[in-house]
Amino acid sequence: MFGGIEAGGTEFVCAVGTNPQNIVVSDPMSTTTPAETFQKVIAFFRQHPPVKKIGIGSFGPVDIHRDSPTFGYITTTPKPGWANTDFAGVISRELGVAVEFDTDVNTAALGEHKWGAAVGLDDFLYLTIGTGVGGGVMVNGRLVHGLIHPELGHILLPRDPLKDPFEGNCPFHKDCLEGLTTGPALQKRWKVSPKTLPIDHPAWELEAEYIAIALVSFACTLSPKRIILGGGVMRQIQLFPMIRRRFQELLNGYLQHPAILRDVDHYIVPPALGDHAGVLGAIALAQQ
Amino acid sequence: MFGGIEAGGTEFVCAVGTNPQNIVVSDPMSTTTPAETFQKVIAFFRQHPPVKKIGIGSFGPVDIHRDSPTFGYITTTPKPGWANTDFAGVISRELGVAVEFDTDVNTAALGEHKWGAAVGLDDFLYLTIGTGVGGGVMVNGRLVHGLIHPELGHILLPRDPLKDPFEGNCPFHKDCLEGLTTGPALQKRWKVSPKTLPIDHPAWELEAEYIAIALVSFACTLSPKRIILGGGVMRQIQLFPMIRRRFQELLNGYLQHPAILRDVDHYIVPPALGDHAGVLGAIALAQQ
Repeated sequence: MFGGIEAGGTEFVCAVGTNPQNIVVSDPMSTTTPAETFQKVIAFFRQHPPVKKIGIGSFGPVDIHRDSPTFGYITTTPKPGWANTDFAGVISRELGVAVEFDTDVNTAALGEHKWGAAVGLDDFLYLTIGTGVGGGVMVNGRLVHGLIHPELGHILLPRDPLKDPFEGNCPFHKDCLEGLTTGPALQKRWKVSPKTLPIDHPAWELEAEYIAIALVSFACTLSPKRIILGGGVMRQIQLFPMIRRRFQELLNGYLQHPAILRDVDHYIVPPALGDHAGVLGAIALAQQ
Repeated sequence: MFGGIEAGGTEFVCAVGTNPQNIVVSDPMSTTTPAETFQKVIAFFRQHPPVKKIGIGSFGPVDIHRDSPTFGYITTTPKPGWANTDFAGVISRELGVAVEFDTDVNTAALGEHKWGAAVGLDDFLYLTIGTGVGGGVMVNGRLVHGLIHPELGHILLPRDPLKDPFEGNCPFHKDCLEGLTTGPALQKRWKVSPKTLPIDHPAWELEAEYIAIALVSFACTLSPKRIILGGGVMRQIQLFPMIRRRFQELLNGYLQHPAILRDVDHYIVPPALGDHAGVLGAIALAQQ
């Protein structure tokens, strides 16, 4: 048995199991203070059979470098009380079990690689567009960490102020991918909840445009074999065909591969794992 | 002894050796027809001691996937006579020796990893800006191939038509990175040879701006530990401090790492290998 912790800024979910068909999942636990939240996590694992290892996919920024003195910490988060918090170390010591630690999005990518939309693909990316934009990346069968970890939400995009006067709401970069495409950005641009926008509203065409531009960048930089798009905004499934079409149009035949030229419906896809994607990814991380 | 072939669209260079201090390099051979060019390559290797393996870094696009029926081919190049040309297979059969095959830029990156500006760094990128823009990428100690191979020159950049009315000259995308920053793009925008532009000409500030925007994208996507900038345009060394400053300003403190915040002079650097970089990279490829 393995353990998994999906650690979000709003709530934590824990699980014990081995795969999507064999898993016990906790109720969501509100993310309050670190001490209180960790106590709920520890209590969950103490109530269940012992696990061989626990995987943690955490909100960030996090230190995921094994050789660093702050490995397993949540680092510079603006979330009150959580900056510079040892996470992996506390869980490991309290439960006496080895821990793997990565970003929430890398962990979700790993779950999709093991049981979801990227089975058998050693080069792909998983992009999530919701209240923020994040992404997990696999290259040559291994998750990308590098200097820190990928921050796919912060690439800078072309924006035509005549077509889109909204300047973007990223506090660091204004009109980066995250500043233009999240739920809160949509809310601010259109002055209504994005959920109330009809599916033929021009908001979605503009949204698909920005996402397609970003995917062109990612495709040219990473040469992925598939791109998985998840998160709350991507529940607007009308976006998928619009993004695929604009992605092809923008690339304009430059990347000559049948996966892009002919089979784009299987190149840009939604995630295959459902509600338990995050915690399943954490279990996959523990099993690595 | 190992062999190396740097295969450019204008000229080929071959070498036999083991490292930068122990290498015999051919005169440049004009890239004429495939048959004629390959004959010159084969003659060079027949005149030298036998090699254990030959590495080829080739202009492209190329098929670098070992399991593909066209592995080792130059594929859809517009260069007359070279489309769909078996390269690795011909060299291997004629010389009776095993061959490694990759893009010219991946190969150059490998040389920098082994003997140059990226020794000991398993996550970095090598970007070349000259008559075109290309890039080699290493992640977790391995070159990135993915679906095809990275095409770093074709990410789409923000361009303000009021500051830069030049629309870009990429035949596929107009104002992608390649369309805005190459030598030919500079020539077309400023109507003079870029070599004649004084170092305080506004051309260089604009050039640094676009390159810095692209590096923000690459840094957010790949999380590299170093970025090496080479190619003819980057011989304008006044660009380096301008690019570093704009890179930091554009990131605006978002990527919180001392390598970027404090030590950017060692984060964005020129290549360390000199004239024989390409062919040394090819030898490094053979030695992998």
